Amino acid sequence: MSTQRLVYLPLGGAGEIGMNAYVYGYGPEGRERYILVDLGVTFPDMDTSPGVDLIFPDMSWLIERKDRLDAIFITHAHEDHVGAVGHFFGELGAPVYARAFTANIARRKLSEHGHGDKAVTTVEAYPAKVDAGPFKVSFVPVSHSIPESASLLIETEGGRVFHTGDFKIDHEPIVGEPFDEALWEEIGKGGIKAMICDSTNVFSKSAGRSESELGDNLEMLVRGAESLVVATTFASNVARVKTLAEAGERAGRSICLMGRSMRRMVEASIETGVLKSFPTVVSIEDARSVPRENLMLLVTGSQGERRAASAQLARGKFNGISLKDGDLFLFSSKTIPGNERGVISIINQLSVKGVDVVDDSDGLYHVSGHANRPDLAKAQDLINPAMVIPMHGEHRHLREHARMTEDKGRQSIVAVNGMMIDLSGNAPRVAEYVETGRRYLDGSTQIGALDGIVRDRIRMALNGLVVVTVILDEDGEPLGDPWCELKGMPETGRSKAGLVEVLEEDMSQFLGRASEKTLVNDTKIEEELRKIVRRTCQDEIGKKPEVSVIVSRLQ
Amino acid sequence: MSTQRLVYLPLGGAGEIGMNAYVYGYGPEGRERYILVDLGVTFPDMDTSPGVDLIFPDMSWLIERKDRLDAIFITHAHEDHVGAVGHFFGELGAPVYARAFTANIARRKLSEHGHGDKAVTTVEAYPAKVDAGPFKVSFVPVSHSIPESASLLIETEGGRVFHTGDFKIDHEPIVGEPFDEALWEEIGKGGIKAMICDSTNVFSKSAGRSESELGDNLEMLVRGAESLVVATTFASNVARVKTLAEAGERAGRSICLMGRSMRRMVEASIETGVLKSFPTVVSIEDARSVPRENLMLLVTGSQGERRAASAQLARGKFNGISLKDGDLFLFSSKTIPGNERGVISIINQLSVKGVDVVDDSDGLYHVSGHANRPDLAKAQDLINPAMVIPMHGEHRHLREHARMTEDKGRQSIVAVNGMMIDLSGNAPRVAEYVETGRRYLDGSTQIGALDGIVRDRIRMALNGLVVVTVILDEDGEPLGDPWCELKGMPETGRSKAGLVEVLEEDMSQFLGRASEKTLVNDTKIEEELRKIVRRTCQDEIGKKPEVSVIVSRLQ
Repeated sequence: MSTQRLVYLPLGGAGEIGMNAYVYGYGPEGRERYILVDLGVTFPDMDTSPGVDLIFPDMSWLIERKDRLDAIFITHAHEDHVGAVGHFFGELGAPVYARAFTANIARRKLSEHGHGDKAVTTVEAYPAKVDAGPFKVSFVPVSHSIPESASLLIETEGGRVFHTGDFKIDHEPIVGEPFDEALWEEIGKGGIKAMICDSTNVFSKSAGRSESELGDNLEMLVRGAESLVVATTFASNVARVKTLAEAGERAGRSICLMGRSMRRMVEASIETGVLKSFPTVVSIEDARSVPRENLMLLVTGSQGERRAASAQLARGKFNGISLKDGDLFLFSSKTIPGNERGVISIINQLSVKGVDVVDDSDGLYHVSGHANRPDLAKAQDLINPAMVIPMHGEHRHLREHARMTEDKGRQSIVAVNGMMIDLSGNAPRVAEYVETGRRYLDGSTQIGALDGIVRDRIRMALNGLVVVTVILDEDGEPLGDPWCELKGMPETGRSKAGLVEVLEEDMSQFLGRASEKTLVNDTKIEEELRKIVRRTCQDEIGKKPEVSVIVSRLQ
Repeated sequence: MSTQRLVYLPLGGAGEIGMNAYVYGYGPEGRERYILVDLGVTFPDMDTSPGVDLIFPDMSWLIERKDRLDAIFITHAHEDHVGAVGHFFGELGAPVYARAFTANIARRKLSEHGHGDKAVTTVEAYPAKVDAGPFKVSFVPVSHSIPESASLLIETEGGRVFHTGDFKIDHEPIVGEPFDEALWEEIGKGGIKAMICDSTNVFSKSAGRSESELGDNLEMLVRGAESLVVATTFASNVARVKTLAEAGERAGRSICLMGRSMRRMVEASIETGVLKSFPTVVSIEDARSVPRENLMLLVTGSQGERRAASAQLARGKFNGISLKDGDLFLFSSKTIPGNERGVISIINQLSVKGVDVVDDSDGLYHVSGHANRPDLAKAQDLINPAMVIPMHGEHRHLREHARMTEDKGRQSIVAVNGMMIDLSGNAPRVAEYVETGRRYLDGSTQIGALDGIVRDRIRMALNGLVVVTVILDEDGEPLGDPWCELKGMPETGRSKAGLVEVLEEDMSQFLGRASEKTLVNDTKIEEELRKIVRRTCQDEIGKKPEVSVIVSRLQ
């Protein structure tokens, strides 16, 4: 027994907010059995990952050890927790467990990759337990911003771990179970070695607010509106969608859902029974004939996503509906850092149309789905763990959370992706550093974040590209002059002549005076032409482009 | 006289925050004389302008009418007001007027473009007047976040206009003149037809706070720090730099300035006499030998700029100094929307080093340089103009400001770039729509925002590029097989064979079965090969790349 160890290894989600993937291991060192908690995605941006569709954690480490992986548990159905399960299920090959609503979403994802329904097992909430190798895992219902979110109680012979998942303390969450303090306390009394805990809102100093606070504010807002009301929030925030729809209904409006994910989420919620009541909605076709002052649209795209309903309504028509002077548009959401440009652009487009925009700046129309700092402290008090390992946060969040924990007299550590933490002793200890990283979904292909493909794209975007072609005969004699094409570059520079002509002239002169030795050496020709192009461009246009040289030899 | 008109035409800065350029005209329609107020830049981003160095307003309209341009006035030395003056001075050819500090900065910019000192005339503040054609212009000192900011009183026979420039109401601005209510009132009493007014903070509901509120907070913060203190703010915010330096000095620290623009701004302030006292600073060389607990660095890069001192200190060493566990880093600044990613990245890098970060979230260490909503109302009361035209704002700001103005019973209009507003009557009226836009500085060349260059870069970044080469002999017979190179693309796709090989095979088959008619037609070959490459890529990797086809015919 003394040679068994209990370890925690984040492969994603620790040192960033997104692409959660946490491994737990138990057993003799080097022969531990594993479970994986969550398998999510994160989203690309133009600065660092242009052209990329989705970002995954690099799961290679676990794939190499898949024979020791007993199960995958999904805490809830947000994309950053469930989004990659379809992409990696085939390579990991372990059964997936989740509560009904989450399982419903996970099955849709798996079926997109050709996996059958049986890959996902629906489990009941605590005290029900799933046996997975040396682990017994139960799903502890918890309030968050999507139905049936769960913390996981992970029991081993080496001790019990409480993995909070995403959570907030909300006693009236509108959808899903209220936060159950007594239950957390009961679990805590059983003795918890380590709590692995959500860190998202560690910098938010006041206690979190309940979803139930919003209904009246929203109703008043809608009642005060004179024409069409449009509200956007995360489609997955089913509680908010319900709060909005009910407020609209009370204010005498017909409700219409717009955007695929908005309709899909409400469907899944009704199918799985987590949404027991929801106002009658009108179809998009019917909505077109409802007077504007009697209609409320609930739409996707709260983060400014270009293809979502909000952005399309801001640009022009969507589903046959267009916004007008006097309409009201509500962001019942917080803008995630990094998405400001997209959101502001929508607000300005709406402003041009004369639409009034209301956002969460007064705190009236949005509450967060994550536990604030005082709530994190309360969670520690309830569970009373020997140690707290912060997760689900950027480095700054993890560090602050660890510090707060230590200030409260508990053990903690800042564990980022790839740090395997040994939880066996009285304090967390770094057992190993594991290589981690990111994989990109690019179209239908997976590529590595560091294998140069995206780097080349960024370079072309920053510097432009010159494609040079030169043809030589079998004796190494140039056939005609070399020529070039410009992509993403100005046509003229300092000398006012065409840049292409200037470049071709310089290359031609080089080939004219090149030695035989150079002319038989493709690499040498490429190198020299690249140098000439970059030097001439620097001189002409003040920057050095990417250069592709194609040397062709006729035989 | 009745045929004279007074017009206002924003060419930049109205409908955006940045690249300010406002034209005023007076005279008979079509023969007005013009003045230009401000000539600034805005900054590129990877999403919309990759590779671009600076963004200018398109000044073509005014350049075409340069014979009618009498003067250029610069209100203050921020880049978004003075940054483009060097780039356009040659094409506009009108004298530049500014107060001493602004003139100092403007001269430096002009000299970088080979223009002599005489291009800029230093002017005294109100009541001094500059005669420029039919205009008499005086610089009315106003508080902002850079020394010697000025509003402009623009007098014509058709009425007087008050152009606020950037301003705040601050009675103790630390550097520069306090806001002078009596003076504004006096100017107002002379009768003001139109006030063209800063709109930046129209959504900020409480009255603005004074720079003088920060000194004590900052001193306490620095006193409480146990090791090195680093503070960043806009270098041009000379008042803040002074407030920070003095707080540091009072807390017993040696002050060191880091980053070129930080040192340059303080120099210019001392040279021009606007900074009469400033703590003794130590050189960077000397700073290295000052004990950490006795040192405070004032550094550039508050907006996360990759090459500035803050980002370099966060990544590693800068000027021989590196940050350590226990150091304190202060953002005495607000993050401009869109810059969040860069700033957060710095905070996380600092967190990894164990550096504590303090920002403006408590409102203790930063105040804005712009008038808040109640201050804008007060400005209207003081100047008492017949109409207020909002400027210096995105559409949402202009619209809100216009609405606020109308609620107060004054005339207003939302005038964005290119809308020429006739101020001659009792209410503002759109006189004309003028074509405007953006020009990009790209290396040393100016390119148009819409001429396709940047679009091509973005496409290459999103889709990758395939360069195809095919050589044919004089009879149109292909010499060997066509071949291709990939840039920014994965090497393999669905079929697991090399993507290059799959593409070359498909192209080769096409050429093998191509008719003679096709083979003599370069455009046709290009089109067909492009189609094949895109189709095959869609099939193999799930996305369609950019394609460059080079058809070469040997004669």
